[in-house]
Amino acid sequence: MLNDARFPLQESDLLPMSIGAALLGTGGGGNPYIGMLRCRELLRKGATVDILPLDALPDDAWIGEVGGIGAPVVGVEKFEQGEECLRAMRAVEEASGKRMSALICAEIGGANSMEPLLTAMQAGLPVLDGDGMGRAFPEVQMTTFFIYGADAAPAAIADDKGNVVVFRHVQDMYWLERFARDTSVAMGAAAGLAIAPMRMDFVRRTAVPRTMTQALQIGRTVLDARAKRQDVVDRVIATTGATLFFTGKITDIQRRTEGGFARGEALIEGSGDWAGSDGRIAIQNENLVLWVDGKPVIMVPDLIINLDLETGEPLTTEVLRYGQRLAVIGLPVHDMMKTPEAMKVVGPQAFGYPDLKFTPLTLGPMRA
Amino acid sequence: MLNDARFPLQESDLLPMSIGAALLGTGGGGNPYIGMLRCRELLRKGATVDILPLDALPDDAWIGEVGGIGAPVVGVEKFEQGEECLRAMRAVEEASGKRMSALICAEIGGANSMEPLLTAMQAGLPVLDGDGMGRAFPEVQMTTFFIYGADAAPAAIADDKGNVVVFRHVQDMYWLERFARDTSVAMGAAAGLAIAPMRMDFVRRTAVPRTMTQALQIGRTVLDARAKRQDVVDRVIATTGATLFFTGKITDIQRRTEGGFARGEALIEGSGDWAGSDGRIAIQNENLVLWVDGKPVIMVPDLIINLDLETGEPLTTEVLRYGQRLAVIGLPVHDMMKTPEAMKVVGPQAFGYPDLKFTPLTLGPMRA
Repeated sequence: MLNDARFPLQESDLLPMSIGAALLGTGGGGNPYIGMLRCRELLRKGATVDILPLDALPDDAWIGEVGGIGAPVVGVEKFEQGEECLRAMRAVEEASGKRMSALICAEIGGANSMEPLLTAMQAGLPVLDGDGMGRAFPEVQMTTFFIYGADAAPAAIADDKGNVVVFRHVQDMYWLERFARDTSVAMGAAAGLAIAPMRMDFVRRTAVPRTMTQALQIGRTVLDARAKRQDVVDRVIATTGATLFFTGKITDIQRRTEGGFARGEALIEGSGDWAGSDGRIAIQNENLVLWVDGKPVIMVPDLIINLDLETGEPLTTEVLRYGQRLAVIGLPVHDMMKTPEAMKVVGPQAFGYPDLKFTPLTLGPMRA
Repeated sequence: MLNDARFPLQESDLLPMSIGAALLGTGGGGNPYIGMLRCRELLRKGATVDILPLDALPDDAWIGEVGGIGAPVVGVEKFEQGEECLRAMRAVEEASGKRMSALICAEIGGANSMEPLLTAMQAGLPVLDGDGMGRAFPEVQMTTFFIYGADAAPAAIADDKGNVVVFRHVQDMYWLERFARDTSVAMGAAAGLAIAPMRMDFVRRTAVPRTMTQALQIGRTVLDARAKRQDVVDRVIATTGATLFFTGKITDIQRRTEGGFARGEALIEGSGDWAGSDGRIAIQNENLVLWVDGKPVIMVPDLIINLDLETGEPLTTEVLRYGQRLAVIGLPVHDMMKTPEAMKVVGPQAFGYPDLKFTPLTLGPMRA
């Protein structure tokens, strides 16, 4: 069992953490695989990074948030140069006149679980055990940090070519999303984003806690189940308290890259307990809503996770394909993402579903 | 006759300067009218601004270039807050660590003749008598400054709401155009842009000289001709050395706002000496090419200027309308815009006409 104390990241943590992060990415957040390889390379070269609990640093320490921004489908084909987030963070430090004492993930889900680890190793900083979503979301403002009042500027974005753009003053987090998104598209839909420094006391109050250890734990469970030839989906459900909502085979998948996002829809023909039923999942980088026989059964901000029915591999939206067999599980999002303030930013309405009423999932029994 | 010495801008200079600037805008550059009103208001409140010849400041003085960026058609309806360029310039000063000693126009044509005057009055700086185009062009990189090697960063863009975005590092002037254009679109297609400080010795070598006095002189000629009920088109031709290339009536005008630009085409049915002929003008904010009976007769970088046939009023592309009667005159661009380096950036090929071979206009006799 992991505890709250500081621990140095080991090479053996990378694979389980990337599996857990991919699962918490709810189909999006980008594939953590390339970031994992980069982190492994740096660790092997002697770099180190400590994971710190949220109570390890003083109140007035400055915390940086970094992550990749773009369409996940592009990230698979257009590799980052590797120091995009570092350059963005340095530009934020220059513009704000503040030096970061540690980094934190914007989103634990997907590739952005690895970006702060990579940047922290490059900069010689620790990473906090927590994040701003407890999952992945497609837009910059969709973090607990912004929901609970983080400054939107100065932020900065950097690409693989050396271009760095600083959002020096922005009216609010929605303007930051707009500017950063458009700039990321101009940069080829793959770039590194750093947001304004946040004080440690603010981060302690607003971060979703312990999500790096959660990702690690989920990933270790998956690997253990595979090693023991157990049913991975069952083990994931048992360890996370998730609920199985659908099993079936993909009969149609539509995807398009639009305004810097991967948007689309997957249709699933039910199997097993759901034989004769139809599933449908709406996608904006992440899985937004699952309908079964036309009825919405899981919706944002709760987590909709697609797992390969045989291997238990988390399926990101860019690898979904016709004929794939999958299990769809639902996991309640952290309570900080369910307050009235949060619902305005990450509820179904914020994603363009005016008629959906958010009905929160409940956590099932958790058996480690 | 104006001379090279420093002179303070007078309220009575504003109207002729705006008329001359609109004419040199070759259909684009935005309407200088609102900027003129703002300048007049500041002058009446006691602000002052000196126009300096290019040899007035020491070699190591830092010169700022500011101007509006966006689709001219938007500028007519969405008024600026008034300090966009000032905020952009301050952000460039902050990012570069250099203070500006004077400002210069990116383009003398259109609204951007007024922006540096306005910003200079707000900041208490003089304005140099020259600009980076000797006309107006639609894209950021199309200045003598960039053609001859000005740094593309740090530059900054500001909108009416207080948003300020700094292009901290950009690979080249084309990347600056791309980022600034996309950001200006996100800002509502009307924003203020400031580019990196330039040393005075560089500006002295690369600016198109004396274009503020040229605009003033043209405007005074127009006003004098109107007062004396003379033919304004004839007087403009006489004072500038331009050539009359077509007269006629607009039979079709197509305009669309696309990617932050006003693009379109005007068809003109010939009249007078051109009765029976057809004229056609291609537009990207500015007039790009005039064809008469299918043959290109004036093309970028030379100036294609539409004047109202009766009043001699310069017609910007956003006010062109069906049935309007106009004279199309051509004026050679400054020699610095006709070098091989310049042709790559502002020749017909740069505007998407691979088959047009630039044939420069010659200057007619000039009679003040």
